[in-house]
Amino acid sequence: MGFFKKIFTKNPRLPQEGGIFFEEINKMLGFVPLNLDHYRRAFTHRSSNKVDENGHPVNYERLEFLGDAMLGSVIAAHLFKEVPTGDEGYLTKMRSKIVSREHLNELGRDLNLIKWVESKVSAQHFGENIHGNLFEALVGAIYLDRGFEYCEKFIQKKVVQPYVDIAKLEGKVISYKSLVIEWCQKEKKPFNYEVYEDNGKEGQKHFAIKLTIGGRVVSRARATSKKKAEEKASQRAFFAFQEKINKK
Amino acid sequence: MGFFKKIFTKNPRLPQEGGIFFEEINKMLGFVPLNLDHYRRAFTHRSSNKVDENGHPVNYERLEFLGDAMLGSVIAAHLFKEVPTGDEGYLTKMRSKIVSREHLNELGRDLNLIKWVESKVSAQHFGENIHGNLFEALVGAIYLDRGFEYCEKFIQKKVVQPYVDIAKLEGKVISYKSLVIEWCQKEKKPFNYEVYEDNGKEGQKHFAIKLTIGGRVVSRARATSKKKAEEKASQRAFFAFQEKINKK
Repeated sequence: MGFFKKIFTKNPRLPQEGGIFFEEINKMLGFVPLNLDHYRRAFTHRSSNKVDENGHPVNYERLEFLGDAMLGSVIAAHLFKEVPTGDEGYLTKMRSKIVSREHLNELGRDLNLIKWVESKVSAQHFGENIHGNLFEALVGAIYLDRGFEYCEKFIQKKVVQPYVDIAKLEGKVISYKSLVIEWCQKEKKPFNYEVYEDNGKEGQKHFAIKLTIGGRVVSRARATSKKKAEEKASQRAFFAFQEKINKK
Repeated sequence: MGFFKKIFTKNPRLPQEGGIFFEEINKMLGFVPLNLDHYRRAFTHRSSNKVDENGHPVNYERLEFLGDAMLGSVIAAHLFKEVPTGDEGYLTKMRSKIVSREHLNELGRDLNLIKWVESKVSAQHFGENIHGNLFEALVGAIYLDRGFEYCEKFIQKKVVQPYVDIAKLEGKVISYKSLVIEWCQKEKKPFNYEVYEDNGKEGQKHFAIKLTIGGRVVSRARATSKKKAEEKASQRAFFAFQEKINKK
């Protein structure tokens, strides 16, 4: 791994272990990265024209291939276990939805991966798919750094728990917000989605929502768009109230 | 897992742990299966019409989905590590070749997986793809039984080592036999592929080859077809003689 050191130590934007990059990656992953070089590569755009000592390009494109494969098998295993009634065709279809380009772009954008990118072109020229590509490359880096089980942990935490709602993927539930509103109207309960900006310490725009039904705060949520935050808060309210809503 | 017990204990063809099925699976895997139920399911054809206590079908079709995903990511990781010069497109193409339907059928056939199939239709009606499907299902069963690392071990031993020759996959080497013959003719060395049937204890037809060049036995090989055994023996001879052959 000597050639990585050579490439990266001279770059002030990529600090050494114990530095800002380490701290931030550590925080995002939820575990300690053992070899930062993999993560540095995961955020190196081909435009930076880096090569290793053998003249081979150093950028995240090969890691995308690896991460895509790991993501596919982690989601396959999750669906296999979670939906014991789903046949092969169902499982294949659900997985395609979860790892769709659109969805991966959303994941990468929500994690604001682009802030770590090292590149010689400006961020406006990347195009939408860079978010998903970085997400895949990151998963590839995790595999190389810590193996399959850490990929699984990370994907569970960042993909499955916040995004994979089987009912919604099946198209049975289009929007939790509409379910909540419908129920409130039928029950003649006043409701209110109170929204405020909450950018936290990450520097990226975030919206926080406080959902009040019948004068009581029933859920809160935070996300990178108002719509997503409302949907998250609605989903939480829905599951909290599920029995009541279903019985009516 | 109680429902598996219910389904399988009454079937005399699927003995309990310690029985023939356990011994055979153990021998093929090269490690101890912890939960035989997964392997039994991997060899249960849909025509057997088994259902669990909830009425869900019990057959290997869902395991195919899981095994296909695991195979894809194990091969992806292998290629990523073995071919540091290959870009994303190259890695994708090479993986498709390795996990092609044709190749998986060959793998399943060589392991003679079909002998364990439990089915209500006769073996002649299965069609060629059953070999590859069983191979995928077996990989899925290994994942459920022992996790990703054992999948990796198994695939290394049964797929990568015997079949994955990068040069050949790249089309640079079409046939090692033709390389060997060409070299012998140029060097005016007499050569001989001596073939004999060697069915061993497995009951399946096997061919053994002894390759003699210039009166000296240079390699031996054994496979399920004469052609494959010759190719294997030629490849071994090629690597043993590589320096000599390349220098000429």
